Amino acid sequence: MNIIDQNLVAKVITPRPIDSYKGTYGRIMLIGGFEHYHGAIILASKAAVYGGSGLVTVVTAPETITALNTELPEAMALSYHDSYQDFIATQDVIVIGPGLGTSLHALTILKEILTSISPNQTLIVDGSALTLLARHQLQLPTTKLTVLTPHQMEWQRVSGLKIINQTPTNNQVIVDQLQAIVIVKKHHSELYTPHAPAQKIIVGGPYQATGGMGDTLAGLVGSFLGQFKPNATTVAAALYLHSAIADELAQQQYVVLPSQISAQLPLFMARFAQQ
Amino acid sequence: MNIIDQNLVAKVITPRPIDSYKGTYGRIMLIGGFEHYHGAIILASKAAVYGGSGLVTVVTAPETITALNTELPEAMALSYHDSYQDFIATQDVIVIGPGLGTSLHALTILKEILTSISPNQTLIVDGSALTLLARHQLQLPTTKLTVLTPHQMEWQRVSGLKIINQTPTNNQVIVDQLQAIVIVKKHHSELYTPHAPAQKIIVGGPYQATGGMGDTLAGLVGSFLGQFKPNATTVAAALYLHSAIADELAQQQYVVLPSQISAQLPLFMARFAQQ
Amino acid sequence: MNIIDQNLVAKVITPRPIDSYKGTYGRIMLIGGFEHYHGAIILASKAAVYGGSGLVTVVTAPETITALNTELPEAMALSYHDSYQDFIATQDVIVIGPGLGTSLHALTILKEILTSISPNQTLIVDGSALTLLARHQLQLPTTKLTVLTPHQMEWQRVSGLKIINQTPTNNQVIVDQLQAIVIVKKHHSELYTPHAPAQKIIVGGPYQATGGMGDTLAGLVGSFLGQFKPNATTVAAALYLHSAIADELAQQQYVVLPSQISAQLPLFMARFAQQ
Amino acid sequence: MNIIDQNLVAKVITPRPIDSYKGTYGRIMLIGGFEHYHGAIILASKAAVYGGSGLVTVVTAPETITALNTELPEAMALSYHDSYQDFIATQDVIVIGPGLGTSLHALTILKEILTSISPNQTLIVDGSALTLLARHQLQLPTTKLTVLTPHQMEWQRVSGLKIINQTPTNNQVIVDQLQAIVIVKKHHSELYTPHAPAQKIIVGGPYQATGGMGDTLAGLVGSFLGQFKPNATTVAAALYLHSAIADELAQQQYVVLPSQISAQLPLFMARFAQQ
Repeated sequence: MNIIDQNLVAKVITPRPIDSYKGTYGRIMLIGGFEHYHGAIILASKAAVYGGSGLVTVVTAPETITALNTELPEAMALSYHDSYQDFIATQDVIVIGPGLGTSLHALTILKEILTSISPNQTLIVDGSALTLLARHQLQLPTTKLTVLTPHQMEWQRVSGLKIINQTPTNNQVIVDQLQAIVIVKKHHSELYTPHAPAQKIIVGGPYQATGGMGDTLAGLVGSFLGQFKPNATTVAAALYLHSAIADELAQQQYVVLPSQISAQLPLFMARFAQQ
Repeated sequence: MNIIDQNLVAKVITPRPIDSYKGTYGRIMLIGGFEHYHGAIILASKAAVYGGSGLVTVVTAPETITALNTELPEAMALSYHDSYQDFIATQDVIVIGPGLGTSLHALTILKEILTSISPNQTLIVDGSALTLLARHQLQLPTTKLTVLTPHQMEWQRVSGLKIINQTPTNNQVIVDQLQAIVIVKKHHSELYTPHAPAQKIIVGGPYQATGGMGDTLAGLVGSFLGQFKPNATTVAAALYLHSAIADELAQQQYVVLPSQISAQLPLFMARFAQQ
Repeated sequence: MNIIDQNLVAKVITPRPIDSYKGTYGRIMLIGGFEHYHGAIILASKAAVYGGSGLVTVVTAPETITALNTELPEAMALSYHDSYQDFIATQDVIVIGPGLGTSLHALTILKEILTSISPNQTLIVDGSALTLLARHQLQLPTTKLTVLTPHQMEWQRVSGLKIINQTPTNNQVIVDQLQAIVIVKKHHSELYTPHAPAQKIIVGGPYQATGGMGDTLAGLVGSFLGQFKPNATTVAAALYLHSAIADELAQQQYVVLPSQISAQLPLFMARFAQQ
Repeated sequence: MNIIDQNLVAKVITPRPIDSYKGTYGRIMLIGGFEHYHGAIILASKAAVYGGSGLVTVVTAPETITALNTELPEAMALSYHDSYQDFIATQDVIVIGPGLGTSLHALTILKEILTSISPNQTLIVDGSALTLLARHQLQLPTTKLTVLTPHQMEWQRVSGLKIINQTPTNNQVIVDQLQAIVIVKKHHSELYTPHAPAQKIIVGGPYQATGGMGDTLAGLVGSFLGQFKPNATTVAAALYLHSAIADELAQQQYVVLPSQISAQLPLFMARFAQQ
């Protein structure tokens, strides 16, 4: 399996064109933080803001709004009671899932996104949105790019493959059917692209085994897809960077918190960028 | 076109008189953060507080208050349901627009400010307040100084000049008519003063293309006009400093967040001040 | 009395297995922050998150939720009006007491935990939960491990021993009866284990005499018991580390705040870990 | 007039006794943050917590609670709708005034404090509580120590002396009548003690002329009086330290924010303490 390395990141993080504006770097909507999982969408959104997204819109439970405004004044915050639907069409990227939960309300909103997203938009499906996808056998929509970010148990639900059977060959078959890029999150996470060679990272470690780590990854993947080329290489760069930052912090820390990774993004993106 | 440089900043940021108090450094009111744009007024207000304003009063949606108190305990926070009108007359500077939105409520408050502001006060009109100004053909009031801070699309709405036609010559004609200082925000933003030579900055870059960057500039312009001489040179100094800080941070960061710029203001103002 | 030293900490903080996930490092529920004591549960939870717990669930007053989400987006936050009971069975560790107060509501929840906790779960009883325990003569449940963390006055209530009579010999008799590990918090706190030698720390100092210091210890003990071996040695390591960090910070600080100790945990755990 | 210097601070900040606990370092209640002035009580309380107070209780508007819990989880937070009266008798120090405003509600609470405070408690009256004191000709109660912290205009209201007439001699006459220690805040603030020589600081500067600076001082004075000897020398040490920290920060900053001063307290107290 191909190894994703730092050279690939350098190719993705290109210098920003001088004459550009916020819209150049992506309009991204993140949906989640429902029920008791408010923090998850804050973590995902922090990765988007610090990862360089131009305009970040968050759709979440009303209880999340104040914490979000405090931590991320750069983001626009909508309650799911607001008319967030009016903002869908103008997005480049939609991330749904961090802290979404599996309530009927969550299902309704997921269905709404799946049916209203258009072929020129990018979709990232994460966390409990993947569980809902599997449970209700929802169809993935036609998009510019769709990325799923399951951990192994979520991948079992989506793919039907038990964890023991999640071999590269078996995974690739399902990915080809799904027509979606899939990150299977595990020790040395794997990245599958339809009808293309699988890749994996060999960065990252158990210091990342803490709540919110996956939410941060989902936000970063969305951020990169909104500002760089919307393809598997860009997904690979986000996946690599997320764990490479953790590795460096882990040289001095026993555990690495997801919010610490996001805070480092502007510095590491400069270091890893194409020179 | 004249280039704004660091020498100009040094001339504006004068040593503070020993025997002074909060009122010496300006009473500034910032109005915005309505609807889903709460963070915008927090960012603008942070620039005002960290930029050295003596007394900062924020008028915003009730949902913004707690985040504002958490981030900026130095500011006084009023809901737009409170009697903020009682505080207008004592202000030196009023900034209206960051995250104001274009609701009927926003329009009502904008009209109220335009009619109640007095000739010895300074007014900064930013963001969606500029859109409202254009859409409803509102007249600018007689003030000590009025500053508009549009990006190119907002300038098109206010001036009637399509972006392609926003040449220095054309811009100057409109500015002379408006009798207001205008910052046209773009790569190498331009500063127009009625019946005076246009200026521009050659600092700043695409690492600033992120949500909230303009809100921070509006707050900083207001802060400077409240504590230094209320003229175009002071506006130029704020405009320069805002992007010069970004340039320095960008030596190590791929993107620069607006809240990071504000946090650096006390340090950079000391470095750039008249020695 | 045996002295707990740094070598013991090194034995407890073992390298994380490469192939692990959040669940490997403990599911921990912290209950408290009622009435006017909201901050206490935030401090305890911060110790759990920064101490390396995999999944942190907080049950608290509704008024605490937004502050908790802001400070600790990594934690899941439930109001005591939510169905937190559904989450009890899946926890490895339950910490009850930081800022719990002694209301009837607090008593009801404490009783509920004491009766629903199972023999394969670990229980930490802290703060006013200890006062309730004594006042209402509640029985400690059968658990994998139960830890009480009283200060001297709380220990008087629980043990019936006046502070003057809290000698090692007398304390040990009660601890043997209680069948629980007990930390008696004082200058050079003591750690009692049923039918085993007593231990004490000789780290720590009066710079720690500030509100919330005990809440942080309770959270850290819970965090360690959820991710390392659930025994007295692990409790000793948490007790030592908490004060050893304070000692080092106190080399430059007159007082040490509990939140500062938690922020240092990832760094100190790396330094003190088994190499 | 005697100059307060660093030697005096060293005499006040004594080493903490080894065998001590939270209560040793003072129970302090701070009352304020009403109406639109929420941030003022957060700033005062931050000075108390970081200044080393053992137990900090805040009585404020309900709207302030969440921001306070987020910024200062170490403090206990009560709404003025709660039974804060139950906590008055156990306090060592009560600070009333930061952001209190002059509402009828504020007046009621001020009167309640003035009549319920006992001769073994210390009282600090700051900000708008001073205005209320003057306006309603309220009598100062018998306490262990009462400290007033007016700026010059507030001192005019309390003393009846116009700013131009606030000479040391005139001030001393009023202070002798009031039987209270008075800090007159100005450039080089003055400290008056009944029937004792006046003192002044020659540290501090115009970089401190920003909202909330006085709130921080009031909190710090209260914190010091709760943990050190309750006398004029301790007040002088707090007054000196507050501006000495500002001076050092101002070597690199054009303005100094009150919250920055509080954050430095643990470090500066260690540096300035008796060795």
